[in-house]
Amino acid sequence: MAIKKVSKALVLYSGGQDSSTCLAWALKKFTEIELISFDYGQKHKIELKCAKKIAKELNLKHKILHIDTFKELSANALTHKIEIKEQSKTAGLPNTFVPGRNLIFLSYAAAYAYGKNIPNLVTGVCQTDYSGYPDCREKTIKALEKSLSLGMDFPFKIHTPLMRLNKAETVKLIKKLGFFSLLGKTHTCYNGLRPACGKCPACKLRLKGFKEAGEKDPLEYETSI
Amino acid sequence: MAIKKVSKALVLYSGGQDSSTCLAWALKKFTEIELISFDYGQKHKIELKCAKKIAKELNLKHKILHIDTFKELSANALTHKIEIKEQSKTAGLPNTFVPGRNLIFLSYAAAYAYGKNIPNLVTGVCQTDYSGYPDCREKTIKALEKSLSLGMDFPFKIHTPLMRLNKAETVKLIKKLGFFSLLGKTHTCYNGLRPACGKCPACKLRLKGFKEAGEKDPLEYETSI
Repeated sequence: MAIKKVSKALVLYSGGQDSSTCLAWALKKFTEIELISFDYGQKHKIELKCAKKIAKELNLKHKILHIDTFKELSANALTHKIEIKEQSKTAGLPNTFVPGRNLIFLSYAAAYAYGKNIPNLVTGVCQTDYSGYPDCREKTIKALEKSLSLGMDFPFKIHTPLMRLNKAETVKLIKKLGFFSLLGKTHTCYNGLRPACGKCPACKLRLKGFKEAGEKDPLEYETSI
Repeated sequence: MAIKKVSKALVLYSGGQDSSTCLAWALKKFTEIELISFDYGQKHKIELKCAKKIAKELNLKHKILHIDTFKELSANALTHKIEIKEQSKTAGLPNTFVPGRNLIFLSYAAAYAYGKNIPNLVTGVCQTDYSGYPDCREKTIKALEKSLSLGMDFPFKIHTPLMRLNKAETVKLIKKLGFFSLLGKTHTCYNGLRPACGKCPACKLRLKGFKEAGEKDPLEYETSI
């Protein structure tokens, strides 16, 4: 009888659509999954509540790591390049956005994973939809994988199953993986509403993806879409 | 008349001997210097006080960044590899030590520097004395330089003037740079004492370096050394 090899992964989990798709992907690929979320002063704590609820339902270990440092950095960061380059994107982001934030999230996740002997990190960064964010690019993630592995002398592998997918393809992926209904429990709305408003840029982007995928979003919206 | 080109650097500054030597080095190399220190739950706040005082005396901008996240990570981290591999070193470290901590310090420093359009980061990591710490190695720093530059789309250069020096050579370097007396204001003692105890592992290592360099430490010690 073949013995299935244990493979452990830590999923960076926000409770949103993308990281839930990563979670579904990881559940298929690895034998042991843990989740890590970051409480960093995001606009809506509802996101973390959703993450917590989903983790509990799936009976997965879930670490919420508190990061209070960003607020000391963000004011300065926003006076420089970001405002000009990515105005339309930062407009919808909380004022805790700092450049290279994903590098810091992944570094913390790696430090946590190291302590639990977990070599695989899974993150929903995607260079298709978010090309304005240089820390979401594949080459950045590859370079970070190397620096984290060298810096902790531990063979980390950063998995980015959504790297080259658009929103519609992400919808199709989670369906294919058999976790489509999970999307009804995720959070996306910038206005922090549940049922979701359906009108903010985040809701619109999400709904566009479902439409292009030919699927109906299982999430509840305020008005019929 | 030749116009001197402005070159900006951010020095990661703990208020200790090594980072003070880096500061001296940076003062010679760059035209504009700022300092960043991390208040991360280190054993003795006296270190930060020294950093603050020296920054003020040299009339340098000084940012103290607060990091509360390490305490949530360190307990786990210490259950894994570190204890076995580096027992003698972690014994003297605060319980906020996490693997790859320098990666996180440098990432925060880079995010701060980005906001101020500062491309040069200077840090006192050293692979000679601290070979047990993989995040102090030259190849780790090179990989991190790449991931930070890609992740923020900004050409960071991480300078490590102490990388290949031993403690005695560090003493000689700061003397050569003309900042030897600055060492009298730095902090090293693990027991957080001023005058320094002269007996703890940190004081002993420091004094050994001075002895080997043939110099008298300008720092005040409790008892005559």
